[in-house]
Amino acid sequence: MPTQEQVITALDKVLVPGIKRSLVKMNLVKNVSVTDGKADVTLYNASLMKDTQEWLKEKVNQTILKVDGVKEVSLNFADAKPKELNSITNVIAIMSGKGGVGKSLVSSLTAIALRRQGFEVGILDADITGPSIPKMFGISGLPPMSESGMLPVPSHSGIGVMSINLLLPAEDDAVIWRGPLIGHAITQFWEEVLWGKLDYLIVDLPPGTADAPLTVMQQIPISGVIIVFTPQDLTAMVVRKAVNMTRQMKKPILGVVENMSYLYIPEIKKKMEIFGKSHAEEMAQSAGAPLLGQLPIHPGLATLCDEGNIERYDSEAYNAFIQKLTGALAKK
Amino acid sequence: MPTQEQVITALDKVLVPGIKRSLVKMNLVKNVSVTDGKADVTLYNASLMKDTQEWLKEKVNQTILKVDGVKEVSLNFADAKPKELNSITNVIAIMSGKGGVGKSLVSSLTAIALRRQGFEVGILDADITGPSIPKMFGISGLPPMSESGMLPVPSHSGIGVMSINLLLPAEDDAVIWRGPLIGHAITQFWEEVLWGKLDYLIVDLPPGTADAPLTVMQQIPISGVIIVFTPQDLTAMVVRKAVNMTRQMKKPILGVVENMSYLYIPEIKKKMEIFGKSHAEEMAQSAGAPLLGQLPIHPGLATLCDEGNIERYDSEAYNAFIQKLTGALAKK
Repeated sequence: MPTQEQVITALDKVLVPGIKRSLVKMNLVKNVSVTDGKADVTLYNASLMKDTQEWLKEKVNQTILKVDGVKEVSLNFADAKPKELNSITNVIAIMSGKGGVGKSLVSSLTAIALRRQGFEVGILDADITGPSIPKMFGISGLPPMSESGMLPVPSHSGIGVMSINLLLPAEDDAVIWRGPLIGHAITQFWEEVLWGKLDYLIVDLPPGTADAPLTVMQQIPISGVIIVFTPQDLTAMVVRKAVNMTRQMKKPILGVVENMSYLYIPEIKKKMEIFGKSHAEEMAQSAGAPLLGQLPIHPGLATLCDEGNIERYDSEAYNAFIQKLTGALAKK
Repeated sequence: MPTQEQVITALDKVLVPGIKRSLVKMNLVKNVSVTDGKADVTLYNASLMKDTQEWLKEKVNQTILKVDGVKEVSLNFADAKPKELNSITNVIAIMSGKGGVGKSLVSSLTAIALRRQGFEVGILDADITGPSIPKMFGISGLPPMSESGMLPVPSHSGIGVMSINLLLPAEDDAVIWRGPLIGHAITQFWEEVLWGKLDYLIVDLPPGTADAPLTVMQQIPISGVIIVFTPQDLTAMVVRKAVNMTRQMKKPILGVVENMSYLYIPEIKKKMEIFGKSHAEEMAQSAGAPLLGQLPIHPGLATLCDEGNIERYDSEAYNAFIQKLTGALAKK
């Protein structure tokens, strides 16, 4: 006789169109029961267009009928909102205070590393006026959406991404919004996007300590913050503002990352500290958190980002960062 | 017999404590009349503390009594608000959309260049959550203020600066404000700061296209915008958002500046394009404005900024930028 477990295993192979993750991983399976070879399945319809629901009905039917002993399938959809279905274990905010230090880069590299380790990962691009994530991953196009919500857009390696730039008619359209609207967009990305089951959601924050970081820290259950900075003194001052904000909001700092630490010049086999001497140890101390990495300036990486191929990146410094990051996340 | 003109000339030598610019340049002289060797002077008291008013009374008295033929001085103060006295010929906003591309650097270099040419210049640091200007110029300390307003803090070369960081107890205190408060702070920097007579006020904008740039473009009579960017494709996309915003707000773009264009490695006598190929011509075209300069990465400049000595900077690329900038401003 077929079991409930067998049916669920089968459903875990049915990918939701658009996000390309299974019904089970998207938390869309409400109920499965099997009696006398008859499988009763209820799925949630959150974020699913009518067409998608029809397609899934057909697909689920075919799939379950292949389970040994199943003779009949009854499939129903139940209403739900994305936020009721989302089950996210860790939310990590990448923050700096300062612009242009590589927050989006560190967000992406963190997500990619965790994905490579087999985790289910998403990126919420909270930089509403300067969103970089879709371009770095080479993804575009409107996310699938219905009245009940939206689905993230998957990257090549299966990281779910939501960014305002996926919703704009043109990628260089300006979002000329005042703070409350920006806060609202971020809240929507949290509540109205079906992230499903995630081990990690990485939140890429914009510069500053205003609406976006404030909304994220107040409305989203952040597990921890990673602080990004570059060597300049001037940067350190502004980044300490972000550290102070994080403290005031009582969020734990998981670690700090120095980006653009140096440039290696192969012709003379020398590291050049082009933005000045490192403040990495000092920043780690003032944040009361471990130094997770010192990433060099890597001209090849800039190219990969511009081409939308950041998922192909690999380097010694990156691997060292990932090791320390994994250690810091394990300790949490 | 002493003339009104002679008295005004004398007043132009009386420096207002704190800002170190003359009563005349600060537009604080309301009225001067001279009759039979008696000088009647009315000054405005905007932004002046009681102590400063007392000090000025004494100083003005002594100064005018030295004018040939003046036997008696009568000095009165009249109430005024800074915004009634400010007379600013050109307001130039430095914008990018993207963070960390060098907006504050270009703001400072523009102000310094204009100051070197003999103009009266101020900088309004509109980056409320990540203000960099005071540190680059090595200035700190609370601006002089009274109930009616504040005075800017002068740099070594006499550029008046107003920045939230001059008002915070510690330079790394976070300003955790939502948009409306940020807009309000910028409006205050425009209306409640006594800038006096200025040829140029440079407004250093934060990243993004949200509250700060919106407030500046809606509330301050901007003469023109200078757009700053770095070579990366990713940056270009976000910067085009700023260009589009500027267009929608119907403000003229005076020119574009590429920063971090390349790094010169003296050991191998080679320019390295470490952030990728230049998009300078392309950006100029898409902004419909001249390319004013391509500034290299200059490790020495980072040090000068960290030390608060940006006013000592000089370089070939900088001079080329200044020449083109002067040309663009002349055409306006």
